[in-house]
Amino acid sequence: MSTGDDGTVRAVALGGGHGLQATLSALRRITSEVTAVVTVADDGGSSGRLRRELGLLPPGDLRKALAALSDTDRRVWSEVFEHRFGGNGALAGHSVGNLVLAGLLEVLGDPVAVLDQACELLGVRGRVLPMSSTPLDMEGDVVGLDSDPAAIRTIRGQVALASTPGRVKQVRLYSSNGERGEPKACPQAVQAVLEADVVLLGPGSWFTSVLPHLLVPELHEALVNTSARRVVVLNLVPQPGETAGFSPEQHLDVLSQHAPALRVDAVLADADSVPTPDRLRAAAAGLGAQTLLDRVALPGMPGRHDPEALAASLTAALERRTDRWR
Amino acid sequence: MSTGDDGTVRAVALGGGHGLQATLSALRRITSEVTAVVTVADDGGSSGRLRRELGLLPPGDLRKALAALSDTDRRVWSEVFEHRFGGNGALAGHSVGNLVLAGLLEVLGDPVAVLDQACELLGVRGRVLPMSSTPLDMEGDVVGLDSDPAAIRTIRGQVALASTPGRVKQVRLYSSNGERGEPKACPQAVQAVLEADVVLLGPGSWFTSVLPHLLVPELHEALVNTSARRVVVLNLVPQPGETAGFSPEQHLDVLSQHAPALRVDAVLADADSVPTPDRLRAAAAGLGAQTLLDRVALPGMPGRHDPEALAASLTAALERRTDRWR
Repeated sequence: MSTGDDGTVRAVALGGGHGLQATLSALRRITSEVTAVVTVADDGGSSGRLRRELGLLPPGDLRKALAALSDTDRRVWSEVFEHRFGGNGALAGHSVGNLVLAGLLEVLGDPVAVLDQACELLGVRGRVLPMSSTPLDMEGDVVGLDSDPAAIRTIRGQVALASTPGRVKQVRLYSSNGERGEPKACPQAVQAVLEADVVLLGPGSWFTSVLPHLLVPELHEALVNTSARRVVVLNLVPQPGETAGFSPEQHLDVLSQHAPALRVDAVLADADSVPTPDRLRAAAAGLGAQTLLDRVALPGMPGRHDPEALAASLTAALERRTDRWR
Repeated sequence: MSTGDDGTVRAVALGGGHGLQATLSALRRITSEVTAVVTVADDGGSSGRLRRELGLLPPGDLRKALAALSDTDRRVWSEVFEHRFGGNGALAGHSVGNLVLAGLLEVLGDPVAVLDQACELLGVRGRVLPMSSTPLDMEGDVVGLDSDPAAIRTIRGQVALASTPGRVKQVRLYSSNGERGEPKACPQAVQAVLEADVVLLGPGSWFTSVLPHLLVPELHEALVNTSARRVVVLNLVPQPGETAGFSPEQHLDVLSQHAPALRVDAVLADADSVPTPDRLRAAAAGLGAQTLLDRVALPGMPGRHDPEALAASLTAALERRTDRWR
């Protein structure tokens, strides 16, 4: 595969939450040139409170990405960043890192400068970028919430969509600054995708952490046009709520519905999490992708990827080592 | 005067709030070996809220001391530390630095380790220590609150004492951990006082920022026994509330009442802020001190010391340059 001038693989991982942490933890074992492009549509928990109170980018997913890439020499700061205040007062549930990022955002303004500053504090090798420099709002079409099974309801907000008992059909993103406008991409994130050797989509909450990147037009276009190898990493288990009962191949169908022009080079899935491999292979082939089934789950931790195993599988996927492809 | 092994003056400044910031800003111009010993009895503002909500040391005065000693190369972090959230939500009025110190206190436990970590982040040359490792409670005897002018009331809390319309006669400090006990000194603060070449008391809110250090028995004893040169820096203007109407010499009288065994080497005051120099000289002589009257006020900023002028005066006081003594 192609690489940067010095032969280092330039990898970009897109996502949010624990899924993005998994790919970042794996990628840092493969290359020092990792860029995380992080969703900024969260409206729940500490992030949602900060967003509503201060009008800032929701910092939680950014913080998780920073933690995944932080240097072990700076573990005091990454531990403090991840620490949540307890008790039952005004601060209960806020993580210190979210508050620090909020403070940096208020002082510096530019989220890219904020994240570069946080990267320095945490000894991050690589970079963490927001997919957009302004907070985004999410809404989606959901069926199965009424007695008429075909009735479509519009559900608003990332938390509401992630936890709906209905079935999400489609999601949309809006800029939440002032009028409801088209979401603008962070220019540095677009550039990173265009200059990458490999881009990863998934794993993670499919509608609320993975697909949002395809709903920002400039980022969508960059993902379609980049010469990077495009790899989709599937989830180990369906997420309760938004993708309850979804098969692995249905995840690819949904991806394709939201980005018909997107071609994919490889689909990586856990062998034990794919009940019907032939169907998955067929769905992947429809996107132009080969399928790699491997054992990448963390034993005893349902739903969590093993970073070491995922790193080995990704390396195989990047090197097109067909001996591992089933 | 005596100095450390390498000839560097080891200075310890005791206090809290803006007064301590003034001496620290002056001392950093004179020596790199500055230790701030900071009061931890605050119960107001952001500090008071954090103390009540999380049971931690009140961080505000510690944060101010860190800011005064921070390196200009780290001005982003010192600006973020000093930044206060606005608005009218749960975070309104909290400074980011207070929240970071609270997080460090919860993760690391030991306040000395917390402050060393913060010093590293802010590029502090020198050290910031709490006078006690546990939060302290303050109470004081106040007259003038009743129709009987001799009636004494006990007023509890630093904020209540600092803003009382009555006249504070005496203050006391208690450990606020569990039972009301004798306040324990931070051992590193005691050691710093004993090993210092010079210790500074004041300026600052006299009863609530300057005297508290003398109310912690081990620290009191260290201040009495140290071979360091002891310098008292007087306020430019009486503080509204606790010392409204106090003359400069009354400040020394109060100091002496709270620490009868304490001898002082020099009293430094602003020439324009001393209406009756002879009375001040007499009060200072009673403590064993010479009086240095100089111009140390910041023009146009009532009540604020000019760090440059204060540094020049302190240098004169340390070198016993009698040509400047009036």
